[in-house]
Amino acid sequence: MVNKINHIGIAVKSIEEALKFYSERLGLKSREVVEIPEQKVKVAALQIGESRIELLESTTPDSPIAKFLEKKGEGIHHLAFEVTDIEKRLKELKEKGIRLIDEKPRQGAHNTRIAFIHPKSTHGVLIELVEKET
Amino acid sequence: MVNKINHIGIAVKSIEEALKFYSERLGLKSREVVEIPEQKVKVAALQIGESRIELLESTTPDSPIAKFLEKKGEGIHHLAFEVTDIEKRLKELKEKGIRLIDEKPRQGAHNTRIAFIHPKSTHGVLIELVEKET
Repeated sequence: MVNKINHIGIAVKSIEEALKFYSERLGLKSREVVEIPEQKVKVAALQIGESRIELLESTTPDSPIAKFLEKKGEGIHHLAFEVTDIEKRLKELKEKGIRLIDEKPRQGAHNTRIAFIHPKSTHGVLIELVEKET
Repeated sequence: MVNKINHIGIAVKSIEEALKFYSERLGLKSREVVEIPEQKVKVAALQIGESRIELLESTTPDSPIAKFLEKKGEGIHHLAFEVTDIEKRLKELKEKGIRLIDEKPRQGAHNTRIAFIHPKSTHGVLIELVEKET
């Protein structure tokens, strides 16, 4: 089952610039900016209720975020939903014909396992499933 | 201050079709589908933690959602953040040079007052502020 929105990922050209709006103007509290080398991004996480806004800045010109920015410009890149038993969820979705980008979960940041569902099966939304490891 | 994500609005061609994924596959619970004539949409709200996913289907060919679908296809249309004292927030944002679509709050569904911030000032995200009336 989906428990809550874990985060909303927003692709931005510059985290520093984007924080001027999301942190200074909206008042969302920013934790440190973390680099995730395997995804070629820097991430600024802003707490909002039980969820987070994650500002995503590319660290290389060939990263998925760099390509997204080139094609679509700044904006929402993906939604992440928190689930339990991610492997079972992926298996069920696959059996029902849902197109998965990751058929098996892979390691995410902060002790999570993650997998992406293809926007073709979600009415245009790149959806990440996240399971927190216990 | 922003308290939480109130909802994520997703533009879809058909709520009936989209519910097959969001309700039947993801297991999100759907309440009744409500028509909002002044916004020319039908809305299916799906609870997810403290927030909602709102599936938005146009009821006329000239609605904002119809135009969005024509231009960009199905996908995330806007994010709605719950705030207190929306008038003060709008005044502060305006004073700081943030571009507002609604400088004064207008009536939203379910006893709310709402106002939209222009994506030019938010790094590409159409943001709705929502205040619940008490």
